[in-house]
Amino acid sequence: MTQLLRVQNFNVSSDGFGAGEGKSLERPFGHADPGEMFSWCGATASWPTRTDPGGTRGLDDYLVRDYHRNIGAEIMGRGKFGPQRGPWQDLEWQGWWGDEPPFHTPVFVMTHHTRPSLTLSDTTFHFVDADPATVLEQAKEAAGGKDVRLGGGANVIRQFLDADLVDTLHVAVSPVKLGSGSRLWESPDELRDRFHVDVVPSPGGSVTHHLFWRK
Amino acid sequence: MTQLLRVQNFNVSSDGFGAGEGKSLERPFGHADPGEMFSWCGATASWPTRTDPGGTRGLDDYLVRDYHRNIGAEIMGRGKFGPQRGPWQDLEWQGWWGDEPPFHTPVFVMTHHTRPSLTLSDTTFHFVDADPATVLEQAKEAAGGKDVRLGGGANVIRQFLDADLVDTLHVAVSPVKLGSGSRLWESPDELRDRFHVDVVPSPGGSVTHHLFWRK
Repeated sequence: MTQLLRVQNFNVSSDGFGAGEGKSLERPFGHADPGEMFSWCGATASWPTRTDPGGTRGLDDYLVRDYHRNIGAEIMGRGKFGPQRGPWQDLEWQGWWGDEPPFHTPVFVMTHHTRPSLTLSDTTFHFVDADPATVLEQAKEAAGGKDVRLGGGANVIRQFLDADLVDTLHVAVSPVKLGSGSRLWESPDELRDRFHVDVVPSPGGSVTHHLFWRK
Repeated sequence: MTQLLRVQNFNVSSDGFGAGEGKSLERPFGHADPGEMFSWCGATASWPTRTDPGGTRGLDDYLVRDYHRNIGAEIMGRGKFGPQRGPWQDLEWQGWWGDEPPFHTPVFVMTHHTRPSLTLSDTTFHFVDADPATVLEQAKEAAGGKDVRLGGGANVIRQFLDADLVDTLHVAVSPVKLGSGSRLWESPDELRDRFHVDVVPSPGGSVTHHLFWRK
């Protein structure tokens, strides 16, 4: 079985940004409104952090529940782990997610400022200062034969695309325009030389799903 | 976690038939051409019995790989297990699938003609003469907390729909007309009073996916 590197449920604006500018503790996505960009996921039955019962079980739910299927590790950028830049001022920050992060696997956080590994429930964060190919090798080894999820942000996905290391991507394009921020692409068509793509409007929400796989 | 009863990857013709007439050992789907009806699954990377590497990883593949996700048992009609009718003439027939059936769970075969249970690799077939609610209760118990797949054929799915026991259905409607055979419905719209539905044309194939979930 081939181990894949997969982007799952990554959201971008219609002009190609994964997050806005001015990310902070209070605004993890900067000037982007997470409600606008992610409401399609939150409406589904399989959304991991939903608190009320119910939720839809149509197409959007298929995509949301694939998030964990056969995933053995995640790779993310430091910006997904927290809003701090530069050397760590203190190590009390343990990510956005509280005591039960939604990953349940080893997570490799790419940063030039390493720190000791950190375990919260069944998620362990490793902080690695290495190029994409090296981090992918470490993550695949940690994944025990399963696939590796590339969690973002946009600039991290960009690095792995530029190194031609990504096997599949699911990107939900929302109708919102951001104007500036972390850019994934100018247009999804940029990937068509290397990837097949299915473009599927969400029947329940306002996003358009883009499902890419390597040619 | 609620245990669901799910129909997965069930194929019908545009006029609502799951199989044609005249089912036999040579023609498990009667006068229906399985190639025409099922080619959308066979093109995907996750198709369980594909022999060559490759295959698509777009929308159709999401649907195909959901077939096994969180399934702990299957319920099927006798016609899916084999073409024989009436009392078993001999017990040598062990299903269409050879030594490695693609189910990997307990399977409950509904029939008025019971026979001893039968284990092939990690699939065990139980032959039960009972009404849908009773069979579902047995299958849920055997599924160990996981969901139960309702495998068809059309008349078995019909019985469970009539008893209002089905939670979700994925039905792929192909553009082929059969004229006669085992009917699932006159039209998918019949289910709209009790189910939400997403109708999604396959971007890669010729079928239209219908994803139903209970209101």
